[in-house]
Amino acid sequence: MKKIGVFTSGGDSPGMNACIRAVVRTAVHKGIEVYGIKRGYRGMIKGEITRLESNSVSNIIQKGGTILRSARSKEFTTKEGRREAYEQLQKFGIEGLVAIGGDGTFTGANIFYEEFGIPTLGAPGTIDNDLYGTDYTIGYDTAVNTALDAIDKIRDTADSHDRVFFIEVMGRDSGYIAIPCAIGGGAEIVMIPETETTIQSVVDTLRTGWDRSKTSFIVIVAEGDEEGNAADIAAQVQKTLPYMDARVTILGHVQRGGAPTAADRMLASQLGIACVDGLLAGRKCEMAGIINSQLVYTPFIDTITKQKVINPYYIEMVNILSV
Amino acid sequence: MKKIGVFTSGGDSPGMNACIRAVVRTAVHKGIEVYGIKRGYRGMIKGEITRLESNSVSNIIQKGGTILRSARSKEFTTKEGRREAYEQLQKFGIEGLVAIGGDGTFTGANIFYEEFGIPTLGAPGTIDNDLYGTDYTIGYDTAVNTALDAIDKIRDTADSHDRVFFIEVMGRDSGYIAIPCAIGGGAEIVMIPETETTIQSVVDTLRTGWDRSKTSFIVIVAEGDEEGNAADIAAQVQKTLPYMDARVTILGHVQRGGAPTAADRMLASQLGIACVDGLLAGRKCEMAGIINSQLVYTPFIDTITKQKVINPYYIEMVNILSV
Amino acid sequence: MKKIGVFTSGGDSPGMNACIRAVVRTAVHKGIEVYGIKRGYRGMIKGEITRLESNSVSNIIQKGGTILRSARSKEFTTKEGRREAYEQLQKFGIEGLVAIGGDGTFTGANIFYEEFGIPTLGAPGTIDNDLYGTDYTIGYDTAVNTALDAIDKIRDTADSHDRVFFIEVMGRDSGYIAIPCAIGGGAEIVMIPETETTIQSVVDTLRTGWDRSKTSFIVIVAEGDEEGNAADIAAQVQKTLPYMDARVTILGHVQRGGAPTAADRMLASQLGIACVDGLLAGRKCEMAGIINSQLVYTPFIDTITKQKVINPYYIEMVNILSV
Amino acid sequence: MKKIGVFTSGGDSPGMNACIRAVVRTAVHKGIEVYGIKRGYRGMIKGEITRLESNSVSNIIQKGGTILRSARSKEFTTKEGRREAYEQLQKFGIEGLVAIGGDGTFTGANIFYEEFGIPTLGAPGTIDNDLYGTDYTIGYDTAVNTALDAIDKIRDTADSHDRVFFIEVMGRDSGYIAIPCAIGGGAEIVMIPETETTIQSVVDTLRTGWDRSKTSFIVIVAEGDEEGNAADIAAQVQKTLPYMDARVTILGHVQRGGAPTAADRMLASQLGIACVDGLLAGRKCEMAGIINSQLVYTPFIDTITKQKVINPYYIEMVNILSV
Repeated sequence: MKKIGVFTSGGDSPGMNACIRAVVRTAVHKGIEVYGIKRGYRGMIKGEITRLESNSVSNIIQKGGTILRSARSKEFTTKEGRREAYEQLQKFGIEGLVAIGGDGTFTGANIFYEEFGIPTLGAPGTIDNDLYGTDYTIGYDTAVNTALDAIDKIRDTADSHDRVFFIEVMGRDSGYIAIPCAIGGGAEIVMIPETETTIQSVVDTLRTGWDRSKTSFIVIVAEGDEEGNAADIAAQVQKTLPYMDARVTILGHVQRGGAPTAADRMLASQLGIACVDGLLAGRKCEMAGIINSQLVYTPFIDTITKQKVINPYYIEMVNILSV
Repeated sequence: MKKIGVFTSGGDSPGMNACIRAVVRTAVHKGIEVYGIKRGYRGMIKGEITRLESNSVSNIIQKGGTILRSARSKEFTTKEGRREAYEQLQKFGIEGLVAIGGDGTFTGANIFYEEFGIPTLGAPGTIDNDLYGTDYTIGYDTAVNTALDAIDKIRDTADSHDRVFFIEVMGRDSGYIAIPCAIGGGAEIVMIPETETTIQSVVDTLRTGWDRSKTSFIVIVAEGDEEGNAADIAAQVQKTLPYMDARVTILGHVQRGGAPTAADRMLASQLGIACVDGLLAGRKCEMAGIINSQLVYTPFIDTITKQKVINPYYIEMVNILSV
Repeated sequence: MKKIGVFTSGGDSPGMNACIRAVVRTAVHKGIEVYGIKRGYRGMIKGEITRLESNSVSNIIQKGGTILRSARSKEFTTKEGRREAYEQLQKFGIEGLVAIGGDGTFTGANIFYEEFGIPTLGAPGTIDNDLYGTDYTIGYDTAVNTALDAIDKIRDTADSHDRVFFIEVMGRDSGYIAIPCAIGGGAEIVMIPETETTIQSVVDTLRTGWDRSKTSFIVIVAEGDEEGNAADIAAQVQKTLPYMDARVTILGHVQRGGAPTAADRMLASQLGIACVDGLLAGRKCEMAGIINSQLVYTPFIDTITKQKVINPYYIEMVNILSV
Repeated sequence: MKKIGVFTSGGDSPGMNACIRAVVRTAVHKGIEVYGIKRGYRGMIKGEITRLESNSVSNIIQKGGTILRSARSKEFTTKEGRREAYEQLQKFGIEGLVAIGGDGTFTGANIFYEEFGIPTLGAPGTIDNDLYGTDYTIGYDTAVNTALDAIDKIRDTADSHDRVFFIEVMGRDSGYIAIPCAIGGGAEIVMIPETETTIQSVVDTLRTGWDRSKTSFIVIVAEGDEEGNAADIAAQVQKTLPYMDARVTILGHVQRGGAPTAADRMLASQLGIACVDGLLAGRKCEMAGIINSQLVYTPFIDTITKQKVINPYYIEMVNILSV
C-alpha cells in the first residue's frame, strides 16, 4: 500500500484533529503518501481530496473540530454514490482509508469494501462513548470535562439562590456523559436512558432533601432519557413541588468543541497510528480501540451490532455520594 | 459608625464574594464590626445575621456565586416587612449597610433609608452591565468571558459542519453581553434590544455570505432582542434559507457562575473598600462605581432612573470585521 | 467498626477533596461515624481531629488541594510519636483509618498497624502516578491537563518567535507526566528518568529539524531526568547550537492545584467508597486502586516495593508524531 | 493610499492576531490592499511579504501568539537595513504600515518615516502595559488572567501545606501585572519595581501573620523588583524565618500565550480598525490607544519618552485586603 486517505465523518468530536495528525505523521514516517478527504463521504464523492504533508497537520493537535470537516452524505447510501467515490479514489491512487467517526461511518465503510475492495480501518471519533470495541471514544473525555466545567459554574448560582437545576447533557442513547457529570458534579440525581427513573422518584428525592433543609439541587439529565427532556421533566417536578425554584439548562453543542484533553490527545494519537499500522498489515473493516490499556481491532460489524453496557454501579454511586 | 452589615441581593454575579471580602477586610482594617446578612432582604427580615471576621472571607475571592446567598423578598416591599428588617438590624446594633446588587436592590435601600434612617451604600453586582453610574458592573467581565469561551467551542463545531449557529446570551434589556461576544467571537451578526435588526436583514447577510461560499456563520442574540429568542429567530431564518443547517444554543445560567476574572476581582475589591469608606464618611443612598478609572458615587435614584447607553459604533464594528 | 478517621498525607493532589468527600458520605451512608484528621500523621499525634458530617464535605468535590491539609511528620517515624497518635485515636474511639497519600504514607500505616493494630486502607493521592497497584493515581490526570494547558500557551509564543522551549514538568522518578505532555503537546523530544536521552541526541534532533527549516521546537523534560534539569540541559544545547534561541520554563507547583478533572473526581470517588467498604469488610494495610477498570486492593508492601513500569512505546510515539 | 502592510514586532502578546484580523478586514472593507509582513522588521528587509485576504484571517481571533511571527532585527537599526526594507515595500507598492508592538517597534518606525517617508501607525501589543498613550495594551488583560489562574492553583497547594509561596510574574520595569495578581490572588505582599519593599518589611509582615496563626502566604514579585528575583528574595526570607516553608514559582512564558480575553479581543479589534482609519486619514508616527473609553492617537515620541504611572493606591489595597 503506497497511498492512503483519511477523513472524518458524523458528528465532530474533540481529538479528531489529533487523530488526523497521527494518521498523517505515521504515514509520512512509514514512507507512504496520505490524502485528506474533506466532508467525509460527501467530499469523497465530489473529489475534495488533497495531499497532506507532515506540516499540513502542524499545530492542530490542540484544536477542537476537524480540519477535514464533516458532513452527512445521502449519495453514499446509494450504489452509484459509492461508485463515484471509488472512482475518485482511483484517480488519486488511494488504496486504503482511515475513517474517523462512529457506527454510521463504519457501516458505510463495510459496504464500500464489499463492493469495491477498498479496505478501511476506523478510529472511534464521537463524544458519546457508546461504541462497542473501545473503552473510550475520541472526544468523550473532553466532552465530559466541558460539561462538568459548566456544571461547576451552574452550581455556583444554584447554591447562591436555593434552586433546583435540571441540566441536560448530550447522550441520545446512553448515559455515558451524564454519569461522570453527575458523580463529578456532585449531583443529587441522574437520569439516563439505560435505567428507569420516574418523575415520582425524582420528586421523592428532592422532597426528602428539602425536608432535611437542603435547598439547592442538581439533576443531570441525558438528552435521551425516557422521561423526556430536561425542560419537560423540570416542568413536571415543579408542578408537584411548587415551593422549589426549578431552572433548566441545556448544555448543547458547547460539549462538542474545545481543545481536547490530554487523554483524548493520547487516545487519538494512539489510534491514528494503529489505523495506519493496521492498514499496512493488511487489516480491513475493523475499528482500532483501547480496551484495558491494550490496543485491539474490532470488526466494524461488531461495533455496529454489539452493545457497550454502562456499569450500573455508577448510579448507586450517585445515591451514596449525595447522601 | 461602629457596626455595619453586608448582603447580596438580586441575581448573583461572579465577584460578589470578592466584594464581600473587601467589605469585611476593610471594616476590620478600620476597626469596625461587620455582619453578614444571608439571602438579602429576606434574611434581614428573618434575622439571618452573623458576625464576620477577617478569616470568614479567606479563600473566597476566586469563588463564583455568593457565600451570603441571594433571594427575592416580597415582604420587604411592604412597610411591615421593612420594619421587621429594621428591628433585626437594631438587635445587632447595625448602623449602616453595604448592598451588593442591582437597581431593584437599591430601590429598596432608598425607601428603607427614608423610613428608618439606615444608610446604605451599594456596589453594582450584576452581570448585565446596564446600570447607570459605573462603566462596568461586578461580574460583567466574567460573564462575557464565559460566554466567549463557549462561543469559541461552538465555532469549532460550526466550522466542522458548515452550520449557522444562533447563540443566545444573557441581556434582557441590553446588548452589553452580546456585543463583545459578537466582536470577540468573530460573529457575522449581532441582535440586541437597543437596535432593530430584522429577520430579513439577517437572511440577507447570511445569503450574501453563502453566495461568497462562506459556509459557517455565528449569530449572537441577546435574550431580550425584539425579534424574539434565538430559537424563534433561527426557525424563521431556516424557513427562508432551507439549504442552510441552522442550530441553536442558549448559554443560560452558565454565564452567572465561575471564578471571577482579574478585572472583576479588582473592581469588586475597589468598590467594596469604597462602600465602607463612604459609609464611614457619612455617605448614604449612593452606589460606588468606576467611571473613566475614577471612583464615583452616584445617587441610587440616578442608577434607577437614568439609562446607560451602549456605543452604537460597536455594531458597525461587527459589520466591518465580518467582511 | 463504628468510627473511622480520614486524613491526607504527603504532597497534595487535585481530587483529594473528592476522595475525602466520598469517604465521609459513604461512612454516613453506612451509618458509621467519621472523623477528619488534619495535617496527616502530625495532626494525628496532636489530636487535630474533628467529626465530619455529610454537609462538612458539601461543595468541595471541585476544589484543588485538601481541606484536611497535609504535612510531613518526623515524630511519626518514632515509636513514641506513633504511640501518641494511637492514644489520640483511642480518645475518639477511632477503629480504622483511610489514608489518602503515597508510598511514604502507606509505609507509616503498615508499621502503625503492626504496633497498634489500627487497620488502614489507602487511596493513591499523588500527581506522579508512579505507584504500583493502580493504573492511575488521584490527581495525575489533572496535573497532566494543567501542564498541557500551559504547554499549549507556550507553543503560541514558541511558534511566534522561532524558539526552542525546554519545559520542565513534575516527575522526580518517572516520566508519567512528561509522556502525555510530550505527545499531547506536540513536542519534538521528551526526556524522562526511565530512559537515557543524551544531550547529543537532543542536539541531533534539533539540528535535523532546523535543517528541514523547522524553527520552533518543544522539549519536555521530567524534573528527574538523568541529564539534569531543564535549565542545565538548555544551557548545554544552546552552547552547541548558538543560532537557536533556547528558553526554559519550569511549570512547578501550578501542576499540583486546580479543580480536578472528571476522571480524577470519578477515581477519587470510587476509591473513597472502596476504602470505607474495605475497612468494613475487615481489610487492612491495602491500597485501593483501579486496574483495567476493575477495583483491586493491593497490599501496602507491594505498593512500596514493586515498580510500575511506563510503556516504552510512548517514547517511540513522540518520535513518530514529531516527524 | 491603496496598499498597506501590517506586521508584529517585539515580544508577542495575546490579541495580536485579533488586531491583525481587524487591520486586514478593515482594509478589505475600505477597498484597499493589505500585505502581511512576517517576522517584523527582519522579514520586511528580507521581503517576507504576502497579500492577505479576508479569509486569510478567518478563525484566528481566538489564537494566542501571532500568525505573522515576530523577531528582533539588528539590521533595521542600521540605515542600510532600513533602506533594504524600504526597497522591499516599494516592490509591493506598500504606502503605509501598521505596526503591532511596543516602544522599540515605534522607535524604529519613527526613524523609518523620517528617512523614507513611509507612514506607520502603531497598536500597543505587549503584555506589560507600561506604554504611555493607552489605558491598556493588547495582551495585558489576558496575561493577568493567565497569571491569576496559575496563582489560584498555587494557592490550593499553599493552603494545603502551610507554605509561603513567592510567585514571580512578568514585569521587567513595572508592576502592572503584579498588582492585579496580588489583589485578585489574595496575596499578602506585592513587590514591584516602582516602590521599595525591603526584605525586612516582607519578613515583618510574614512574622506578624504567623504570630496571628496564619500559616500560608502568597508573595507576588514582579520580575524587575529591585530586591532581586523571586528565588533570591525567598532565600533571604527563608534564612530569617527558618520555620516557614518557602517555595518559589516563576510563571514565565506561559503568561504570553493563550486565547485572548474578551477585553483584549475588543481592544485589539478597535485599535486595528483605528490604525487603518488613521492611515487613510493621513496620520503617521502615532500609536492608537484607548484612554477613558475614548480612542486617542499619541505621537510615537510620547509613547517612547513619557512614562505611564501606576496608581500607588493599589499597593495600599493589598495591605487592607490581606488584613
